[in-house]
Amino acid sequence: MTGRPEDGSGFRLTVSHERVTLPNGRNVNLDVVRHPGASAVVPFVSDHDVLLIRQYRHATAGTILEIPAGKLDPGETPEACAIRELAEETGQRAQRLEKLGWIWTTPGFTDERIHLFAAFDLTPVPPQLDADEIIEVVRMSLDEALDRVWRGELTDAKSTVALMHAAHRLDRLR
Amino acid sequence: MTGRPEDGSGFRLTVSHERVTLPNGRNVNLDVVRHPGASAVVPFVSDHDVLLIRQYRHATAGTILEIPAGKLDPGETPEACAIRELAEETGQRAQRLEKLGWIWTTPGFTDERIHLFAAFDLTPVPPQLDADEIIEVVRMSLDEALDRVWRGELTDAKSTVALMHAAHRLDRLR
Repeated sequence: MTGRPEDGSGFRLTVSHERVTLPNGRNVNLDVVRHPGASAVVPFVSDHDVLLIRQYRHATAGTILEIPAGKLDPGETPEACAIRELAEETGQRAQRLEKLGWIWTTPGFTDERIHLFAAFDLTPVPPQLDADEIIEVVRMSLDEALDRVWRGELTDAKSTVALMHAAHRLDRLR
Repeated sequence: MTGRPEDGSGFRLTVSHERVTLPNGRNVNLDVVRHPGASAVVPFVSDHDVLLIRQYRHATAGTILEIPAGKLDPGETPEACAIRELAEETGQRAQRLEKLGWIWTTPGFTDERIHLFAAFDLTPVPPQLDADEIIEVVRMSLDEALDRVWRGELTDAKSTVALMHAAHRLDRLR
């Protein structure tokens, strides 16, 4: 991910303390994490195989299995962000991107939306990791990735939803 | 949801500014929203029909379609939270709860985990909404809910993942 302080520090969270008038007329105080949005990608390296990443996440106190993803830079389109993050994190440039949809990650306290894509026709480029990104690229079949969801071994929300969308419309995507 | 200030104000976000030593030895600053965790429930009112809620969310600037959910009270188990939130938001008490799994909602900046359940054998109780909850209960078939996911009309991450898990193992759940 880019758009970070020069010292390699992570995302500075912007919490907005807001006085809100609800549609029912009540006034309440609400804290919202205002977020620039993000893109996440299911990268297909063959008809059946995808690339996941095993990434260290401080918030989870360990490594978790995810699809490549990252925040939108200022002015960046979701498509450009998806292609950039995929290249940075996995060293693969996508020649073709297909929309899978988007999610609200956790609308109770943030306006973060993640745009979901499938990527095809990949060619190698040098990966570029940020100082706080510790990533191992893992290749497996889409079926194996889905099995890991069902077994509770792949628990990242954006990755789960993107893999489901990819599997649902795979015949039309390829 | 409960555990809120008396004036009906929403969740006070706790952002933790942390100096972190990563597994690669680098020191970075990371902001993390420390969250108590939450439960979310797919409530089955018949063999095929579920209850969703259409809820006003300030962060999304409008209403979105979700499954009933809410934060864990201090000391509360995920199961007790699921049963309480389902009753408060939909006026239905579950006699049977089945685990579907859990998700990291957005591990880049929060440790929030949502525990996912399916609920069965529902009996009516009085709903109890908080001051900032504006909720309409919507009954539809599980198939219709999934179609809304595929069409991009149901975009809440926890709801999407929980509905997929419920559909995947429905024969064993019922």
